[in-house]
Amino acid sequence: MASKRRVGILTGGGDCPGLNAAIRATAKTVIPMGYEVIGIRNGWQGLIDDENEILDSVSTSGIIDRGGTILGTSRLSPLRVENGPQRVFDGFRKLGLEALVVLGGEGTLSVTSRLFNSMGLPVIGIPKTIDNDVEETDYAIGFQTAVQIATEALDRLRSTAESHHRVMVLEVMGHHTGWIATYAGMANGADAILIPEIPLDNGRVEELCQMLRDRDKKGKRFSIVVVAEGTELAGKPVLRHGFDITQGENICRIEGLGGIGIVIGEIIEKKTGLETRVSSLGYIQRGGTPVAGDRILATALGVRAAELIQEKKYGEMTALQGSRITSVPLEKIVDGIKTVPLDVYKVAEIFFG
Amino acid sequence: MASKRRVGILTGGGDCPGLNAAIRATAKTVIPMGYEVIGIRNGWQGLIDDENEILDSVSTSGIIDRGGTILGTSRLSPLRVENGPQRVFDGFRKLGLEALVVLGGEGTLSVTSRLFNSMGLPVIGIPKTIDNDVEETDYAIGFQTAVQIATEALDRLRSTAESHHRVMVLEVMGHHTGWIATYAGMANGADAILIPEIPLDNGRVEELCQMLRDRDKKGKRFSIVVVAEGTELAGKPVLRHGFDITQGENICRIEGLGGIGIVIGEIIEKKTGLETRVSSLGYIQRGGTPVAGDRILATALGVRAAELIQEKKYGEMTALQGSRITSVPLEKIVDGIKTVPLDVYKVAEIFFG
Amino acid sequence: MASKRRVGILTGGGDCPGLNAAIRATAKTVIPMGYEVIGIRNGWQGLIDDENEILDSVSTSGIIDRGGTILGTSRLSPLRVENGPQRVFDGFRKLGLEALVVLGGEGTLSVTSRLFNSMGLPVIGIPKTIDNDVEETDYAIGFQTAVQIATEALDRLRSTAESHHRVMVLEVMGHHTGWIATYAGMANGADAILIPEIPLDNGRVEELCQMLRDRDKKGKRFSIVVVAEGTELAGKPVLRHGFDITQGENICRIEGLGGIGIVIGEIIEKKTGLETRVSSLGYIQRGGTPVAGDRILATALGVRAAELIQEKKYGEMTALQGSRITSVPLEKIVDGIKTVPLDVYKVAEIFFG
Amino acid sequence: MASKRRVGILTGGGDCPGLNAAIRATAKTVIPMGYEVIGIRNGWQGLIDDENEILDSVSTSGIIDRGGTILGTSRLSPLRVENGPQRVFDGFRKLGLEALVVLGGEGTLSVTSRLFNSMGLPVIGIPKTIDNDVEETDYAIGFQTAVQIATEALDRLRSTAESHHRVMVLEVMGHHTGWIATYAGMANGADAILIPEIPLDNGRVEELCQMLRDRDKKGKRFSIVVVAEGTELAGKPVLRHGFDITQGENICRIEGLGGIGIVIGEIIEKKTGLETRVSSLGYIQRGGTPVAGDRILATALGVRAAELIQEKKYGEMTALQGSRITSVPLEKIVDGIKTVPLDVYKVAEIFFG
Repeated sequence: MASKRRVGILTGGGDCPGLNAAIRATAKTVIPMGYEVIGIRNGWQGLIDDENEILDSVSTSGIIDRGGTILGTSRLSPLRVENGPQRVFDGFRKLGLEALVVLGGEGTLSVTSRLFNSMGLPVIGIPKTIDNDVEETDYAIGFQTAVQIATEALDRLRSTAESHHRVMVLEVMGHHTGWIATYAGMANGADAILIPEIPLDNGRVEELCQMLRDRDKKGKRFSIVVVAEGTELAGKPVLRHGFDITQGENICRIEGLGGIGIVIGEIIEKKTGLETRVSSLGYIQRGGTPVAGDRILATALGVRAAELIQEKKYGEMTALQGSRITSVPLEKIVDGIKTVPLDVYKVAEIFFG
Repeated sequence: MASKRRVGILTGGGDCPGLNAAIRATAKTVIPMGYEVIGIRNGWQGLIDDENEILDSVSTSGIIDRGGTILGTSRLSPLRVENGPQRVFDGFRKLGLEALVVLGGEGTLSVTSRLFNSMGLPVIGIPKTIDNDVEETDYAIGFQTAVQIATEALDRLRSTAESHHRVMVLEVMGHHTGWIATYAGMANGADAILIPEIPLDNGRVEELCQMLRDRDKKGKRFSIVVVAEGTELAGKPVLRHGFDITQGENICRIEGLGGIGIVIGEIIEKKTGLETRVSSLGYIQRGGTPVAGDRILATALGVRAAELIQEKKYGEMTALQGSRITSVPLEKIVDGIKTVPLDVYKVAEIFFG
Repeated sequence: MASKRRVGILTGGGDCPGLNAAIRATAKTVIPMGYEVIGIRNGWQGLIDDENEILDSVSTSGIIDRGGTILGTSRLSPLRVENGPQRVFDGFRKLGLEALVVLGGEGTLSVTSRLFNSMGLPVIGIPKTIDNDVEETDYAIGFQTAVQIATEALDRLRSTAESHHRVMVLEVMGHHTGWIATYAGMANGADAILIPEIPLDNGRVEELCQMLRDRDKKGKRFSIVVVAEGTELAGKPVLRHGFDITQGENICRIEGLGGIGIVIGEIIEKKTGLETRVSSLGYIQRGGTPVAGDRILATALGVRAAELIQEKKYGEMTALQGSRITSVPLEKIVDGIKTVPLDVYKVAEIFFG
Repeated sequence: MASKRRVGILTGGGDCPGLNAAIRATAKTVIPMGYEVIGIRNGWQGLIDDENEILDSVSTSGIIDRGGTILGTSRLSPLRVENGPQRVFDGFRKLGLEALVVLGGEGTLSVTSRLFNSMGLPVIGIPKTIDNDVEETDYAIGFQTAVQIATEALDRLRSTAESHHRVMVLEVMGHHTGWIATYAGMANGADAILIPEIPLDNGRVEELCQMLRDRDKKGKRFSIVVVAEGTELAGKPVLRHGFDITQGENICRIEGLGGIGIVIGEIIEKKTGLETRVSSLGYIQRGGTPVAGDRILATALGVRAAELIQEKKYGEMTALQGSRITSVPLEKIVDGIKTVPLDVYKVAEIFFG
């Protein structure tokens, strides 16, 4: 008697809100198609180490509103493990999988594409990253929640800024792009938004400080500045890990507490004489209950992934393009970074100062 | 000396979150272009009655996160007032306006289109309605916030449903369409979603009850049902205003407390024997702080309206199409209703039962 | 070999946020004392029907922030079941329990007291009810969350009230007392609060309407009115179940959609001519994630219950008195109702009008 | 003709949620008593510089839910200004004030007490501080909101901790005491809470690390650690301002990004080998909309302040003691710090590990 056809699912890279909604959607769509669903634990690691569990309609119920991933995740790349791709392939075969759904950001999905091209691993990718920098999809899972959390934080900072006549700087996530900074800054009505896409040279720093001085003179005695963590200063990255700013030396391995945010806060205070405070949103912006928008996107992308499995259309990434849920070949997103379009940033910029 | 060029703004129809963000965006974009901005109070009423105020950069600051509309609104249509269109035109001229920005739903914008066509009133429309039924734009201002509020309410009902092994019915807004019901239901993972677009005849009611019985038998001892207020039963509207259900008579003018929700709850309880409770979200879903998505949309649409004014491109409605902010002739949306596409509903339907 | 000593826990009556936090606290405190914890399913029903499960440190982890009760609940009273008390006692003995922790409101805890007095059942009560009407404790579990939800709803209604120049009426829970109405009304700055403790006779209705008219004349063109569901009109209860208002007849069994709220809204609109809208918060106010205050209270009361078990001090209810966590004999709360003190209401009243 | 009797209000020290609710309550209670209310801008500064505004029923409406303070605040102490007390007194007389209501934390209220004792300034104090360390009152305004924000942040961190099998450290405010850490940690079910009241010597650090290792061994592959910013390590304060940890040198003036949090995170990761991440909540925990509990407390304390003015009972601080709103002589709180009681901490401690 033939055993059931099997689909595997794994989540790789950093976690984010909406992963569980996508896992649920894929599982609940393929199960009635006759598949058994295997959840691979801790990203690629679980495929190599044979750590997994069956996902049925019970274990995927009641998780649509849960942050993180019930599967666990890791940043391990099989490309950096000895004989990694083969071990992944062996793990895949050992489980008797017909297809593998991979939820990941640009890094994880690039690996996925390579495994498809080199080994013919039958994969489907689903884009997730609060940074929103995966190409070919308007939004990745997790982004909308991160924007909402950052916007609420900025709203809170505004009341303190007003009461104390201060400049408040908030550093948000965004290694290579300023999506969260731009969207949350626009939603809050921030007075300045600094992102990696727009070089922060001395001229621009001076403009920023002049604008803050002008606001103060006009009697607008507070300002909100949002900065993406990956924003470089005068073309140089600011260490994000504890760091001795004066030495440019990384003295501590714990990350998440602001790098460019501190530096820019320091500069503002020195140059303008305006009292300045810095906060860094850190891991708070990537956890917890996803907003409705992320749950709906994750559900739609998960259902599309299930359809691709049924169609045996492998090597694709599900995507949101305009108002359409579609898919694109995974190789189109490899090693690319989707930056914030200048015309979107320009809309936010209208309200600066 | 020439006086300043002037732009008027008004909000008509029901209020919703994000109106202030759009007012702010339009005003803050046109002021630097050299315009003075006049806020018309209480919709068309304020143009007829000459009630208005100057909106400067101070009065439009700090309002991006405020629900409702600082201008006030009313449901008065100039088409139903004696000599209404002419009086609107006179009010417009008296204020020396060059253009008028109208924030409204399908009703208000249809009136706006007619005033443009019949009298040449130089208007720009911006779509807003939590119902999301304005054609030619993917989202109208207010919809995303309503979906988030409804989703959070459904999340809350779920814990009670589980604890008491009940069917919980939530009635949400949606006069002619089921946008909020479909999106919030999908985000919550609801077990059934009833919307005006899908006729609720006896067969479908029976299917619904059978599904609820099946869930109970499978040990899933609770269910969540979302119903849009405009859903008709067996082709007949259910009175939404106090009402004597048995007589079909409207015995009370106060609205907002559930019509079809109560009826469908009654039917479920009678037919299945499952304990059922009904809630109606009412006005809570249309007020308060807008979510980030609505603030960003409102900002982008407001900026686009400002650009149309500068281009003297009147008779247009700003719109979101895919990921583009654009505009369409107002007449394209007159008397139309944008219903929930069947393929979107089908995605939600996968998770029923 | 002696088997482990066992403690049972059950939740009775309506569910509310914070029950799981209390279950967790009691279990995690008694387990290290050497007890095994048995969760009784669905209130007293589970003791009669022998439905239960072992609660260990795994099954009570990760539930502190979950609404409802993982045990399920029911409104069944053993006093209304044939031979109920004996069957409860038999169930208790069959499980080999040493003590039983009962989470309930005034009704469930009164039953608990009677079982203690009549049969010597070794019980500990923990007070929970969003209505907050259990005597001898300042707060019952669930109340603080309900107040927060109702306050947020009122905040949302305020923006619509302002935009439309309306009177907004919100009906909140409170069968016999006006705790939620008073606290949420005070937190929102409501213009009138109607509660069962203050008779709503014709004179008071007239005063209310006059105040609303006065506000309108002063240019305060909106008002917020909060009413507790149990508020009687002219000494008569208003049917809360669908109802034909004109006939005073209960035409429908589905509850939760506003009774006195609709009636008072009708009266206001008729007497003042001010546009009035009514919402009923319904089941939304009793579900979902508990606020920090409820989790802390539930934790402290659960720990105290564990200590009482260790001390074999049965027949007690844990309680918050001032800033002290203590306990009182259960019989002190039997059939009593803790009403809102007049001096608390008077503080809210200062801000009316 | 006699001019109106006048009352002044000022807010000093750091801002927090609920200040506006207290300003509103005091003003709206004394205005009907026949007083005119003068809002002093920016704390004591405004009394010295004669910056103020009339607060009437319009300017104090609609602010109950607003974070920060409409009056502005500053940390200036008149005791550190040349001839400060006399200048305050002159400012007070120039405005023709009969009494002055001061909202402040321990620092501001100690100054207030001294001005009362030395110069007979007729003052009433109202306690506010998210740190909750003012003596003689159970809660100060702002604390409950800070606890709720910190709890929600911990809830969000938990999902990431679980997904990545990490230790997550959150640093919260609390210069001298661990109130926020203890309450939010208890509400979240944190695995360890580090506060200034409990010395963090090497032995305790070792215990903490052992517990984290034990959890990992038991398969609980994540942990949440909350630490109050003022917690000292081995009896030495950790610099909270940018800092070069290795040199113990303060290399940067911008504060708010974690000190002890980073250090303890480093130590945990080194000693246990468990992946550890640190976040610092910073200014986000002190701004924005107050929770219902803070609005109610602020309202009750503001009303009590008004009553004290009417009774001419000066030199008092309003206070919450148990469930009573009362007042105590200001001198009772001078230079004191209310620490977290050991028995409260012990309740939280039960759930560690």
